[in-house]
Amino acid sequence: MNYMHQLEFKVRDYECDMQGVVNNGVYQNYLEHARHEFLKTRNIDFSEVTASGINLVVVRAELNYRDSLRSNDVFEVRSHVQRQSRLRFEFLQDIYRLPDNRLMLQARIVGTSLNEKGKPLIPEFLEQLFD
Amino acid sequence: MNYMHQLEFKVRDYECDMQGVVNNGVYQNYLEHARHEFLKTRNIDFSEVTASGINLVVVRAELNYRDSLRSNDVFEVRSHVQRQSRLRFEFLQDIYRLPDNRLMLQARIVGTSLNEKGKPLIPEFLEQLFD
Amino acid sequence: MNYMHQLEFKVRDYECDMQGVVNNGVYQNYLEHARHEFLKTRNIDFSEVTASGINLVVVRAELNYRDSLRSNDVFEVRSHVQRQSRLRFEFLQDIYRLPDNRLMLQARIVGTSLNEKGKPLIPEFLEQLFD
Amino acid sequence: MNYMHQLEFKVRDYECDMQGVVNNGVYQNYLEHARHEFLKTRNIDFSEVTASGINLVVVRAELNYRDSLRSNDVFEVRSHVQRQSRLRFEFLQDIYRLPDNRLMLQARIVGTSLNEKGKPLIPEFLEQLFD
Repeated sequence: MNYMHQLEFKVRDYECDMQGVVNNGVYQNYLEHARHEFLKTRNIDFSEVTASGINLVVVRAELNYRDSLRSNDVFEVRSHVQRQSRLRFEFLQDIYRLPDNRLMLQARIVGTSLNEKGKPLIPEFLEQLFD
Repeated sequence: MNYMHQLEFKVRDYECDMQGVVNNGVYQNYLEHARHEFLKTRNIDFSEVTASGINLVVVRAELNYRDSLRSNDVFEVRSHVQRQSRLRFEFLQDIYRLPDNRLMLQARIVGTSLNEKGKPLIPEFLEQLFD
Repeated sequence: MNYMHQLEFKVRDYECDMQGVVNNGVYQNYLEHARHEFLKTRNIDFSEVTASGINLVVVRAELNYRDSLRSNDVFEVRSHVQRQSRLRFEFLQDIYRLPDNRLMLQARIVGTSLNEKGKPLIPEFLEQLFD
Repeated sequence: MNYMHQLEFKVRDYECDMQGVVNNGVYQNYLEHARHEFLKTRNIDFSEVTASGINLVVVRAELNYRDSLRSNDVFEVRSHVQRQSRLRFEFLQDIYRLPDNRLMLQARIVGTSLNEKGKPLIPEFLEQLFD
């Protein structure tokens, strides 16, 4: 995979559940934060986009859980984005534990953007992502 | 779909993000709670199972986001479970908004169970689910 | 205490941390949801208030943790609200486990409201709460 | 204040609510993570302590919310710990936004530790914190 962005995290203990591992739902938080930081490197600020009336939304998420992150684990979310169709784009995001570089999770997050009327529309500032 | 369990929820405002809708990651929380409540109706208590050394884990999650839940929305998670293979089972879970019964999310959550050594093994108490 | 509102909850397993009990931070979620539901019984809708440009904000929170909620616990948040000063109001909120009615947490949440310019101002629709 | 530890964070968008600011309950997550990282610098690992049967618990939390963190904000949690009584210790934790060093939140988190029987007992490894 030709990753276009990577972001390092450390597990926080409140993210772990009674099994002593990061709860399944928390991975989507990690992935979202990584996507938003990725977008910022392309001068797209999620909060400004939202305030302008455009909603970037997830329409499908696929997550393959390979192994569990635990307290003290440091890891990296590595992301790639590509166009999927005229109105959809997809982020391919993988989580690797550090320093052993073990693949913990593979995800595909499909999104679109909606204008103020709720109509799907890819604005110009998103087009640059797919060059 | 032949749903085997349904559970009613109400959106809580802390679950909504700056877009004013329930954040994507929160749906996995709803689905997990619905699964655990479903299991309880079959006399399977997730916390007791965990304490006994068996870990029920998610290996794959697929979520199709159809529409967004918002503040004040009441909704139902409807669940079905079936065997997928010798060592895997899958929950088919749909979220319907009430009272208009609009389908908001469709999910497939594939799981397995691991014994104390981390080896996949479906214990007998799970077998009854798939009759 | 002369409670003015009560709301029943059930612990959800994703709210529990590696100690097997509800994580400390989650209680503020319970209290917020109970306050918002309380306000709705007085015809104050938090999301509408927010959309209108008025921000109801917490300025101080005091929480006494008496005992820990666990998986399967059912509990009630019981709330009272009163004026604290010209520009501040306070919610007194206690959490009781059911059915044994054991007091688990006592909280005092002090709030104010800010107009669109960020200036503290108690709007008329809040005044009715303190009669 | 004589801070003994500081930890830098960045707001994540899923932590923001419909008001567009970090939700009140999230600050307790920040504070907890900062305490656990602080403890690690003193060779106390929260997850190992928990696994050994000792539960470090919060008995009281006081939070003064001075201003709201928002999307993109970078901030630091600065912490001090001291003994409060024979069986209780307290963390004084302040959150400063960077780079303007504006004080956003002041907190006092009182804790104790419980042995396997649930009896309060400050183990020796905690004593070193209060020298």
